[in-house]
Amino acid sequence: MIWQDLLKIRTDAPLVHNITNYVVMNTTANALLAIGASPVMAHAIEEVEEMTGLAQALVLNIGTLSQSWIEAMLIAGKEARRRNIPVVLDPVGCGATQFRTNTVQKLIDEIHPTVIRGNASEIRALISTGSGTKGVDSLHTPDEVSEDAARLSKSAECVVSVSGPVDLVVEGKVVVRIANGNPMMTKVTGMGCTSSAITGAFLAVNNSAIRAAAHAMAVMGIAGELAAERAAGPGSFQMNFLDSLYCIKESEISQRLKMQGFNQTSIG
Amino acid sequence: MIWQDLLKIRTDAPLVHNITNYVVMNTTANALLAIGASPVMAHAIEEVEEMTGLAQALVLNIGTLSQSWIEAMLIAGKEARRRNIPVVLDPVGCGATQFRTNTVQKLIDEIHPTVIRGNASEIRALISTGSGTKGVDSLHTPDEVSEDAARLSKSAECVVSVSGPVDLVVEGKVVVRIANGNPMMTKVTGMGCTSSAITGAFLAVNNSAIRAAAHAMAVMGIAGELAAERAAGPGSFQMNFLDSLYCIKESEISQRLKMQGFNQTSIG
Amino acid sequence: MIWQDLLKIRTDAPLVHNITNYVVMNTTANALLAIGASPVMAHAIEEVEEMTGLAQALVLNIGTLSQSWIEAMLIAGKEARRRNIPVVLDPVGCGATQFRTNTVQKLIDEIHPTVIRGNASEIRALISTGSGTKGVDSLHTPDEVSEDAARLSKSAECVVSVSGPVDLVVEGKVVVRIANGNPMMTKVTGMGCTSSAITGAFLAVNNSAIRAAAHAMAVMGIAGELAAERAAGPGSFQMNFLDSLYCIKESEISQRLKMQGFNQTSIG
Repeated sequence: MIWQDLLKIRTDAPLVHNITNYVVMNTTANALLAIGASPVMAHAIEEVEEMTGLAQALVLNIGTLSQSWIEAMLIAGKEARRRNIPVVLDPVGCGATQFRTNTVQKLIDEIHPTVIRGNASEIRALISTGSGTKGVDSLHTPDEVSEDAARLSKSAECVVSVSGPVDLVVEGKVVVRIANGNPMMTKVTGMGCTSSAITGAFLAVNNSAIRAAAHAMAVMGIAGELAAERAAGPGSFQMNFLDSLYCIKESEISQRLKMQGFNQTSIG
Repeated sequence: MIWQDLLKIRTDAPLVHNITNYVVMNTTANALLAIGASPVMAHAIEEVEEMTGLAQALVLNIGTLSQSWIEAMLIAGKEARRRNIPVVLDPVGCGATQFRTNTVQKLIDEIHPTVIRGNASEIRALISTGSGTKGVDSLHTPDEVSEDAARLSKSAECVVSVSGPVDLVVEGKVVVRIANGNPMMTKVTGMGCTSSAITGAFLAVNNSAIRAAAHAMAVMGIAGELAAERAAGPGSFQMNFLDSLYCIKESEISQRLKMQGFNQTSIG
Repeated sequence: MIWQDLLKIRTDAPLVHNITNYVVMNTTANALLAIGASPVMAHAIEEVEEMTGLAQALVLNIGTLSQSWIEAMLIAGKEARRRNIPVVLDPVGCGATQFRTNTVQKLIDEIHPTVIRGNASEIRALISTGSGTKGVDSLHTPDEVSEDAARLSKSAECVVSVSGPVDLVVEGKVVVRIANGNPMMTKVTGMGCTSSAITGAFLAVNNSAIRAAAHAMAVMGIAGELAAERAAGPGSFQMNFLDSLYCIKESEISQRLKMQGFNQTSIG
């Protein structure tokens, strides 16, 4: 249940360790605080293992990657897996450069993330690496996105969360669709990265990775709808989005939720 | 025509590759999104060449420079020139330290930027380096700023865009003056850096570098005026500025524009 | 007098050199601008000494530390002391990892900061290092915080400023308590870091370090109260906080101030 997860985040204030990109550090830290979690950003090779050991979730995001940050991600990711701390991997810009695609492949191989959260192009790039059968310029029909996510879920043995007009959260053959959200979310930098950070917060309080990932996307989408209704543009949207994450009510979730794919009893 | 450029940015969503400073990454990415462009931030030596090759404009900003970032700027800048991708150089803090002044001089010499965009002190510092005849403490009268910009335009063979109470955009002997803007813009960090990023977006859609640079400053100034009228201080100004960039109308531009120096037909 | 300090900041616009963490660079620069100071962020080993030499205060913050940044902090810090430029040290996350605790100890030993500003856990961690008698999980009663701050003030020979529900500013046996502020301040990232930056601005205009540190915490707290009254959540709080720093009036300070510990004449 989404609301129970949210209450648990607000009560437990789980520590979410982020090794993320410069562009979104401030806004993802604020989103984690707004939802009730405790963010920490730390990337020094000398301390990431110790910091991850204190955390209830680890979020790795390659948005502004460089060599020493990749090494820190590998150290932190391995420590997380050793301690059964859930790991979210956000393959920002995967497919745009070979360096990004190779790095993400290496992180998947060595860390085995709990959830990979990206957009359709990024997920496609990770599939193409293996098979070489599809180019990054292909159209992404809903069926193709679903197929790509299922293939990546199988090969990487993890939950795959794909944001888009309809978000998909996939684990093996289970596909959950969340139709919440607002186009204004694409006009603010880092909303995808924020989804990944919030997914980390839900993983900290829900042992089912597919439910945690889906609940995170649902809350992101509903907070986005609430914010868009009060916004005059992307500046006021960003402000209202943080307010909405902080203020979101059980009734707002239950009335707006458009999630399909779980058994009846788990929705809401 | 400014409005035609804006429509083209909104339609084409040109990719603007930024190698910029930590302070403004978030706000410049948001400004680019608000105006309709697609920002990407990437600085790893392993990927900047490939990333620049995908972009329609490159923006280099030395605000929080360090050695490996300078190397990345040189690689990206040379790739941009090889591919005829326009380059904006923002010499943040040039003149404050020898390291900044030397770095900017090196970037100019090796990259030959399309547009250099800075404030009067930064432009002065670049002139003084060569001649040694003027100190950084000199007053900057409008005539002096114009003269400095003309000298730099000649020596660097590029357009020089100087922000201030009246913005100047200079190419050789052509001087365009834009008297839009609001003093509140000096109370928010990174408004100059945002001007540089927005200049990149206009260069992506307008082959005339001087027109692109002038149009960028005009839109910045008018969005600043609109935002200031709705703001209670610099916090609400920043929010309203992004909203204004996103919502700006053709009539707001034509009614407010205070631009002099182009032929009659090109204004508006 | 707080108001006199504020007027002096607005008039002199002192340059505050920050070597700080990625998460808060934008928001602390904006807070410094809002209050009337001039922020500069620079961390390259090639330029920090020169940049510090231009500044009226130096703020060191280890929030996202790494080796080359520590070296820059040491160079800048030593230059500041050589020139009698006041130094604020913010030991973000001290106690969470050995790397942070060791780094802060090294910075204290080699730089002798003017003011150390942190929260109760961070201050405790610096005491525990020496004595080993108290764990980081101990409760922080007001008396314990006061005792910890006094011990650190004595051993580090500096002013210690501890933010919390009631802020404490301690120098030797003098303890100043500031009971301003609002719980919403804990829901926005970097409010502590902002306190440190603002402390730098006050140190630039007031030769008494304990008064400067206390005045900074008072203005932070009062601006926080004003912002919270206008905020619907942490997003609008952040915006209103910057507006409040910019707009704060003498009457708002005198009516709201809850500061104890200085002689009667110095309050207000």
